[in-house]
Amino acid sequence: MKQYEVFELVLNGQPPEGSEALAEVNAVFSLDGQEKEVKGFYDGNGVYKVRFLPEKCGVYSWKVSGAVVDEGTEECVPGDGHGLVRAEKTHFVYEDGSRYIPFGTTIYALVHQEDALVRETMESLKKAPFNKVRHCVFPKSYEFNQNEPPCFAFEKDGDGKWDVNRPNYKFWERLEKAILELADMGIETDLILFHPYDRWGFATMTAEENEIYLRYAIRRLAAFPSVWWSMANEYDICFAKTVEDWARFEEIIKEEDPYGHLLSNHYCMKPYDNSRENITHLSMQNILFYKAPQWIREYKKPLIYDECCYEGDIHLSWGNISAEEMVHRFWCAYCDGAFATHGETFLSDDDVLWWAKGGKLKGKSPEGIAFLREVMESLPGALEPWDEPVWTLYEPDLQDGDAPADLMENPFFKLHASLTEAERDALNLKDSAYCGHYEEKAFIKYYGIQQPGRSCMFLPKNHTYRIELIDTRERKKSVLMNGASGTVWFDMPGKEKMAVFAIATS
Amino acid sequence: MKQYEVFELVLNGQPPEGSEALAEVNAVFSLDGQEKEVKGFYDGNGVYKVRFLPEKCGVYSWKVSGAVVDEGTEECVPGDGHGLVRAEKTHFVYEDGSRYIPFGTTIYALVHQEDALVRETMESLKKAPFNKVRHCVFPKSYEFNQNEPPCFAFEKDGDGKWDVNRPNYKFWERLEKAILELADMGIETDLILFHPYDRWGFATMTAEENEIYLRYAIRRLAAFPSVWWSMANEYDICFAKTVEDWARFEEIIKEEDPYGHLLSNHYCMKPYDNSRENITHLSMQNILFYKAPQWIREYKKPLIYDECCYEGDIHLSWGNISAEEMVHRFWCAYCDGAFATHGETFLSDDDVLWWAKGGKLKGKSPEGIAFLREVMESLPGALEPWDEPVWTLYEPDLQDGDAPADLMENPFFKLHASLTEAERDALNLKDSAYCGHYEEKAFIKYYGIQQPGRSCMFLPKNHTYRIELIDTRERKKSVLMNGASGTVWFDMPGKEKMAVFAIATS
Repeated sequence: MKQYEVFELVLNGQPPEGSEALAEVNAVFSLDGQEKEVKGFYDGNGVYKVRFLPEKCGVYSWKVSGAVVDEGTEECVPGDGHGLVRAEKTHFVYEDGSRYIPFGTTIYALVHQEDALVRETMESLKKAPFNKVRHCVFPKSYEFNQNEPPCFAFEKDGDGKWDVNRPNYKFWERLEKAILELADMGIETDLILFHPYDRWGFATMTAEENEIYLRYAIRRLAAFPSVWWSMANEYDICFAKTVEDWARFEEIIKEEDPYGHLLSNHYCMKPYDNSRENITHLSMQNILFYKAPQWIREYKKPLIYDECCYEGDIHLSWGNISAEEMVHRFWCAYCDGAFATHGETFLSDDDVLWWAKGGKLKGKSPEGIAFLREVMESLPGALEPWDEPVWTLYEPDLQDGDAPADLMENPFFKLHASLTEAERDALNLKDSAYCGHYEEKAFIKYYGIQQPGRSCMFLPKNHTYRIELIDTRERKKSVLMNGASGTVWFDMPGKEKMAVFAIATS
Repeated sequence: MKQYEVFELVLNGQPPEGSEALAEVNAVFSLDGQEKEVKGFYDGNGVYKVRFLPEKCGVYSWKVSGAVVDEGTEECVPGDGHGLVRAEKTHFVYEDGSRYIPFGTTIYALVHQEDALVRETMESLKKAPFNKVRHCVFPKSYEFNQNEPPCFAFEKDGDGKWDVNRPNYKFWERLEKAILELADMGIETDLILFHPYDRWGFATMTAEENEIYLRYAIRRLAAFPSVWWSMANEYDICFAKTVEDWARFEEIIKEEDPYGHLLSNHYCMKPYDNSRENITHLSMQNILFYKAPQWIREYKKPLIYDECCYEGDIHLSWGNISAEEMVHRFWCAYCDGAFATHGETFLSDDDVLWWAKGGKLKGKSPEGIAFLREVMESLPGALEPWDEPVWTLYEPDLQDGDAPADLMENPFFKLHASLTEAERDALNLKDSAYCGHYEEKAFIKYYGIQQPGRSCMFLPKNHTYRIELIDTRERKKSVLMNGASGTVWFDMPGKEKMAVFAIATS
């Protein structure tokens, strides 16, 4: 047993008489007087399994009851893993405290492709900058997704209907193999539990069937540290499910998941209620990057733009942006203290589009995202939104970065404070740079489509900073000034897609 | 007297005893039993003038009363002018029915520069694609605007305060000379009557002073066919004026302007109430191009994005976009059936920035705007927003462009219909192409940052069309297909900033 790695007990017994999916296997793992209850599951052929994710080292005693019975002890020693990724304030961190900044990509039907293609996808991921993949339990039926998957999550009953009580063990093993292979590359699985793009009947299962499926899936997968639960891709167009269904799914997941994996619910047009207690982070589909500071502060949770369009050239507007635009959107998100997820949809004679099936990456955005990842990981800590004190721009006598005491007496600021949200949004869309900071140790400003030839930063006066210029297109850094403190002005190249960052040197 | 040209009577008399600005000069021009009352004005040195804009041909009889008295007849014959630009539905047209599509630029303090610079500006405009200039009556005090103007609109009183009752005739002559010189080049003057960027006291005149100034200005200028009244640049930060003041200004303008020139009120953060009857068109400051169809339909008036940032490289975010971005914004606006206004703010050693002072154009966006103008003027009529029937994209069985009868039974469309305005905006920002049409004769679609390798148009089945591809960056057109009808698919180059348009050939 190794800390942060799946520990699996394999026990033989009689096959379940009722539902194979809900076979009753209860286990308790105890360490230092603390008990953790986990559920086991049936894996076919008279085999029951109990999986446990040890998060502490020491000698555990364990006891299994129900359809199979056994007990024992096992010493847990340190391993190489970092444990679950958790939400900490408005960013993410591994259970062991190691840094994790998500740089995701999307391969919805990853495990529903033939082995050779899955193989190719894994090889592509080895060379790519991604450390999270959004993929689905259920296969996908949609444009560019007409192929049949090699296998399905359940067996069929005599009427040809899916029988959720009889899992297809081959499928689950295949899914787990992919999750583990991704994990070996340091890639988290943002596992999509439901989605609407279906021609087989998975999207229209009854509430009872959904519950059986969910309980089984979570009992099998909750011990995998790299798994996140994404309740849906586009929950709001899962028309067979109601708001109450989603709330119920949250509760089922909570009951079955002893570790508290990350949990989100992704939408198409109507955001899910991300203020809900079980929701650990925002999984958004929009390109309103200027709203990130507002949402991060409002929800106090990490924010991932999980769908901000895909690099590609298909006819659908969500799948035909350029590499430069994709990378630009990433910079907008990360510099605001949020995160984004990549996808790729290039027309292809063989109908293999990365976003759905994987294969080879054809686009250029991964190079830009790799550079962004390098820059972000070089920062001393996790970014939060930064409201640079811009009033100094409008109050030329106040060049020292201090807020004037009578700021709100200034009619300009009074007017600004009186704007409706729509008016403020319109202003922010037009004016926004994307600014983040880590305490007083790092400040970053991404200018996006602005191309100033001269700019400024309003830095704390009690530190000095090295200011670096980043050309996000050329992927080059250069030092603009050393020893910067307080309000500093500097020349810039008058080009788009530039960032500056200030790193405290004292 | 020529149709659509200023006719001026010059009459000598005793200088006014009271206000020179409000000197009482009433004139009536009669033709075919129809009378038009116009006010004259005092022009200094015992000279009174009455200006009249004849809009019909024929023999007018006229009669002047008040401070000076005279009468006579004058035959009006056809001239070269086209008359006032008027709002017709959601676009503009000259009084004589000729086409006018505004392609404006911004030179706020045009007439407040030394003669040599004004000269240079006029030379630049000769070579530029612009047919409207936004400029101010009052000089501008702001960053890059620190110079004193050659003259002001009024004389000062003994206390050094502006005396609005004593116009500075030299100033008004200078302003009129500029307006006429612009008009000779086919350029309309969008004359800004008030603005907040002031260090001389014009922004803080009393309501009474404002009224005297306005009445004088309009009596002098209303007969110039090329003048539009822009009540303010950024009315909402004219903090010395209230909403009631602006409503009062509308009434004063209405009283003094016998012709009904175009009238708008431009804002900084809070749009003016553009539903007001006197307001002829929307003068907006934002980059929400995807909102154009909604606003055009809501207000049923033309919409000009009079400030959608400027090409340049200054530190302020509204003044540092690239030429490509500026041209892109123009395409967005025009293809939606709206209009936009250019400006340029490049840092310069001599502090001459086009947006404020004129001079030479340094940017590259005028070339792109010239090309857009050529394309727009080649269309058979004025564009209106076009809602392409996109449901076919989501209903693959309905490839013929017909709306399914049970469209609103489709849960996808039900969901779409239930979105809040903010949710719909978020979707439109992400998904929007910019689409316009002129009847069934022309359809245009601008893909903006989308770069599809394949796309489609849903055209009427009762006509055939020639479809042209436009590369807005390369400024090149090519024919994609002839004889297109109904739903047509075509390959595209998979590049950004492309447009297609379909012109009916039968």
